[in-house]
Amino acid sequence: MKIPVGILGATGSVGQKFIQLLNNHPWFEISALAASEKSAGKPYAEAANWFGSDQIPENVARMTVRNCTPDLNCSIVFSGLDSGIAGEIEEDFARAGYTVISNSRNHRFDPDVPLLIPEVNPDHLELIHQQKYGNGCIVTNPNCSTIGLVLALKPLVERFGVKTVSVTTMQALSGAGYPGVASLDIVDNVTPYISGEEEKMESEPLKIFGTLQNNQIRPAEMTISAQCNRVAVLDGHTECVSVKLNQPATETELISAWTSFTAEPQQLSLPTAPCHPVYYHKDARYPQPKLHRNRDKGMAVHTGRLRKDPILDYKFVLLVHNTVRGAAGGAILNAELMLKKGYIKL
Amino acid sequence: MKIPVGILGATGSVGQKFIQLLNNHPWFEISALAASEKSAGKPYAEAANWFGSDQIPENVARMTVRNCTPDLNCSIVFSGLDSGIAGEIEEDFARAGYTVISNSRNHRFDPDVPLLIPEVNPDHLELIHQQKYGNGCIVTNPNCSTIGLVLALKPLVERFGVKTVSVTTMQALSGAGYPGVASLDIVDNVTPYISGEEEKMESEPLKIFGTLQNNQIRPAEMTISAQCNRVAVLDGHTECVSVKLNQPATETELISAWTSFTAEPQQLSLPTAPCHPVYYHKDARYPQPKLHRNRDKGMAVHTGRLRKDPILDYKFVLLVHNTVRGAAGGAILNAELMLKKGYIKL
Amino acid sequence: MKIPVGILGATGSVGQKFIQLLNNHPWFEISALAASEKSAGKPYAEAANWFGSDQIPENVARMTVRNCTPDLNCSIVFSGLDSGIAGEIEEDFARAGYTVISNSRNHRFDPDVPLLIPEVNPDHLELIHQQKYGNGCIVTNPNCSTIGLVLALKPLVERFGVKTVSVTTMQALSGAGYPGVASLDIVDNVTPYISGEEEKMESEPLKIFGTLQNNQIRPAEMTISAQCNRVAVLDGHTECVSVKLNQPATETELISAWTSFTAEPQQLSLPTAPCHPVYYHKDARYPQPKLHRNRDKGMAVHTGRLRKDPILDYKFVLLVHNTVRGAAGGAILNAELMLKKGYIKL
Amino acid sequence: MKIPVGILGATGSVGQKFIQLLNNHPWFEISALAASEKSAGKPYAEAANWFGSDQIPENVARMTVRNCTPDLNCSIVFSGLDSGIAGEIEEDFARAGYTVISNSRNHRFDPDVPLLIPEVNPDHLELIHQQKYGNGCIVTNPNCSTIGLVLALKPLVERFGVKTVSVTTMQALSGAGYPGVASLDIVDNVTPYISGEEEKMESEPLKIFGTLQNNQIRPAEMTISAQCNRVAVLDGHTECVSVKLNQPATETELISAWTSFTAEPQQLSLPTAPCHPVYYHKDARYPQPKLHRNRDKGMAVHTGRLRKDPILDYKFVLLVHNTVRGAAGGAILNAELMLKKGYIKL
Repeated sequence: MKIPVGILGATGSVGQKFIQLLNNHPWFEISALAASEKSAGKPYAEAANWFGSDQIPENVARMTVRNCTPDLNCSIVFSGLDSGIAGEIEEDFARAGYTVISNSRNHRFDPDVPLLIPEVNPDHLELIHQQKYGNGCIVTNPNCSTIGLVLALKPLVERFGVKTVSVTTMQALSGAGYPGVASLDIVDNVTPYISGEEEKMESEPLKIFGTLQNNQIRPAEMTISAQCNRVAVLDGHTECVSVKLNQPATETELISAWTSFTAEPQQLSLPTAPCHPVYYHKDARYPQPKLHRNRDKGMAVHTGRLRKDPILDYKFVLLVHNTVRGAAGGAILNAELMLKKGYIKL
Repeated sequence: MKIPVGILGATGSVGQKFIQLLNNHPWFEISALAASEKSAGKPYAEAANWFGSDQIPENVARMTVRNCTPDLNCSIVFSGLDSGIAGEIEEDFARAGYTVISNSRNHRFDPDVPLLIPEVNPDHLELIHQQKYGNGCIVTNPNCSTIGLVLALKPLVERFGVKTVSVTTMQALSGAGYPGVASLDIVDNVTPYISGEEEKMESEPLKIFGTLQNNQIRPAEMTISAQCNRVAVLDGHTECVSVKLNQPATETELISAWTSFTAEPQQLSLPTAPCHPVYYHKDARYPQPKLHRNRDKGMAVHTGRLRKDPILDYKFVLLVHNTVRGAAGGAILNAELMLKKGYIKL
Repeated sequence: MKIPVGILGATGSVGQKFIQLLNNHPWFEISALAASEKSAGKPYAEAANWFGSDQIPENVARMTVRNCTPDLNCSIVFSGLDSGIAGEIEEDFARAGYTVISNSRNHRFDPDVPLLIPEVNPDHLELIHQQKYGNGCIVTNPNCSTIGLVLALKPLVERFGVKTVSVTTMQALSGAGYPGVASLDIVDNVTPYISGEEEKMESEPLKIFGTLQNNQIRPAEMTISAQCNRVAVLDGHTECVSVKLNQPATETELISAWTSFTAEPQQLSLPTAPCHPVYYHKDARYPQPKLHRNRDKGMAVHTGRLRKDPILDYKFVLLVHNTVRGAAGGAILNAELMLKKGYIKL
Repeated sequence: MKIPVGILGATGSVGQKFIQLLNNHPWFEISALAASEKSAGKPYAEAANWFGSDQIPENVARMTVRNCTPDLNCSIVFSGLDSGIAGEIEEDFARAGYTVISNSRNHRFDPDVPLLIPEVNPDHLELIHQQKYGNGCIVTNPNCSTIGLVLALKPLVERFGVKTVSVTTMQALSGAGYPGVASLDIVDNVTPYISGEEEKMESEPLKIFGTLQNNQIRPAEMTISAQCNRVAVLDGHTECVSVKLNQPATETELISAWTSFTAEPQQLSLPTAPCHPVYYHKDARYPQPKLHRNRDKGMAVHTGRLRKDPILDYKFVLLVHNTVRGAAGGAILNAELMLKKGYIKL
């Protein structure tokens, strides 16, 4: 008997990824798909412009799309709603008693909403007891670029402390949704600007690495500078990072911090958890989106090219699958953690 | 009566760019083409795998390719030779009395060889009087990524001083020559590594911004950290830069420093000089390789997105056409400056 | 004293190309820019999302965009209007006495409207005397893919007759306008369908190659089968063509028909006319969009790989710059022909 | 107890695909890897420039690469050897008693060598009894573009007969091996030529569709014309096809022929066989490489856009995964068929 779950924004690009990743999930089973008025009432296969490389799972294809109103046949909903409308709809569902696992940015900075990465700040889940939604609650996952960065930083924060982070991203097209980036803007080109992205990368990690005290998050003390670019890659954000640590460390120690890093999702054997949250690649040409984004179910972060930085302490490259680990997969892992730790009452 | 010039490595990608840019040049006329044994003796049109979007200029197409020996019918040679062989051949030509304008890296750090960008360090040309090549001499231009960076920094260095530079590049495919980067390595991908590139970007600016004292260059005091990536762009390197200045400055002052910047090539009306060495774009989405690389003959550097950096002082984006300003065009401008200022005796 | 011309749909992608190609035109001068309500009243630089690789010409940048109503200060208008609205607006202008040179499909099959390619059917201009627009008139140019195909076929039609044409296209992204094709649909992909394109390619050539008799076009007898695809190319449509001729011919004769082909635009030295309408490339790897689309001002068609076809008679490859020869440039050449031959009274 | 198999040319791109597809194969187990002198003696992980998106299977990574001499510990070898050397090496292995399943072109037209596609001409396997290799034998699979074409044609050949085929391909980069196509030749470009490809597509189907009579293949009577292009797609060849049938048929009949098609690999439940050899897509935009190449293990052919052809009878689009169905996967299916039908004695 699997747990029925619903998807809000089921026809969009994040919604489609939820469907792909929840197909044959050992714990969850899609029981409801909700989207905009335009799609409601239609069979999913007709409502969605499906662009997955797998077929729409058969049971999902035939399911009728519903409106985004809190009368879905499930108690957990994954939200891939557009931020233009996510805020209110998610609250409606929470108030109606649903556990809302959201990928949207709207509630990320609500003081009582966890901005959750299971390997990084599982203790922040305690915040939901502060929420005023009755039996329901809202849990968010961070921006896709933030997730990659924070996962790579976590082992360093834990062992050595991180004071300063400078990061330049080369982000994939799928991060902009569909239709998203026009081909005329990106073939033979780079776009050195992604609206709102740098602000998210500079602020979200402070909450995620923050300390839970008196039912509140005290933000971490860390200075982050981000420069965000769009490049002609379908999936997988590459980030060039420099860090200043709080205490001295050798290259070997940093690499060891990454490769030995393990956390609750691994210890609890959550089904969507990667075997290792962070892989380090010795080959100077790696990591690369095309080669590494799908490894370990697309849920791992890949680092490489660790070397001294003449300004801060160290620099390195990281890669994260932006729509899996950085969005739908991350949200599903959040739900798995919450379920396993008793934060979801069915 | 134009001045006859030769091209060493004429069939390679930099050589081809020299030919394109010297076509209809008001001062220079190609009189000799030299390349490897394999090409020598053939008409150029047959020896070269021409990939310019213009046709091979007719007179060049029929010219017989010569060996790279110092018996060419000219006194100036532009060298686009591969670094594997450039060192010795360039010296041979210099010793035989030729003015060698080189794009190769071999002699860039010879203490008596100028690493020249006409808008930046024209006074370094005095170094050639220290050379032991008789009537000949060698002048080099920097790496393509360095040229873009240094041109954007120059107005800031001049007005405010620059102490620290952190730069992450997204470099074009043409920078790797032909056949260069395999398509399987770059379609839907990023390569976060370019052999030797970071070292060049971190060291060359110190010489270029260095001070000429007692016939020697005293390197500038500046700390540079570079992270270099290859992306699926044909021409045009994009660089994300953060800088720490020596003295406080407002955004307006920085932008004004760029837009008002002018130097000897502009004052001397050198034919290949851009009207403005640096353009600043107010649109947050700019500069972009596809849109701006060819403006002002491909010889200008484009900056944009100036904003405060929470770690250093400011961050911005720059764009440089790597094979024009960053290679062949830069070398031709070097020759024009030398000629105009009397460093070349014909 | 240049002739003032207006551009309808000036902010769109075809409109932008008109502006680029009319900049420094020896006969014409842009005196009016018109676009939708949304743009009207704004300076052009602000109204347009300019994506040309050159800057907006200064005089154009400052010009105020007007509404598409027939009160523009000129007597010739180039129309790059969207087909959703082009039909009526173009008629309004014609009725008000303007010469309308249109790139839109709306009036292409009006029996009294020439579907004009100056090298192919200049005699069809006589049709405009049948039009009921008073002093005004409408002249259209064909679809971008059709123009390339018809120009390559014309020398064969003239000398040998062409009975049957099978063509498969690989079309550029710029043909779909902006934002046009989503990057997620074309990076690492091919789209084997372009709405309405095959129908145009199968029907338009019949009118263009038709015979003017009793003030009417009798369509040519020719069977055409087209298969149209979109590929990740910015500019330049590549077409693989097979033809059955009416009379036997050798490869040499076909190539000679192409290379010796010349027509009124060349004979009249029209400023936008290519030196040669058709180039034949002997290198089996050519023509290629990146290499050849811009040659001869982007106005020539390039053919290559002529060889026997085991089903029809011959097969070959052709390339046409879709937004220059296939759209704005073709339309400007139409205007030049009309002016030179006295079809436009100023 | 799985059957040990070897891979010749194990470090190349086809070799790598064999390794990926044989990983966890229910019948076969890789017991030997052989490659050129340069690689021999090294652990596979070191010898190969692995570009799979999965990791090298652990047991393979550690395996020492051997020379391509017939002393490998297995009785079946898959050959992904370069055609420059494949001919002789494959014969050596056959003579030494190995069953050689080759992807190379060298022996495809040997009169006693089956050019095998299990769904199309399994009866041709009888040819191997004519071979003079003792206990060994050579079986080849066709060119990647041919395999896609022939699989889509087979149901039509069977039911209606096919007289004439005109095909234009848009082929993926992986078909050229590694490093293969230079990025400068294909970003923002199409290459309308692939050496030898058209000849293969025009000749191989005649043998495959040929009739086995008196231990010889009588080639099919079919006229094929092919035009082959390279486009910027990583995997998946798209082909635009027109066909003339021997007997009239409706669109519905053709589609039904495809969707109901099944053959020995399906009936025998061969592990690598797709559920359906051919899928028909009703959406006019399909099939597309990015969306459909990996469906059904990458072993199915996808057709779409069936419509009347004004010259021949019908036209349609097909898609085949060139390195899976068109190369390594096809070869593995050949081996599975041979094993199941008793053509391989262990």
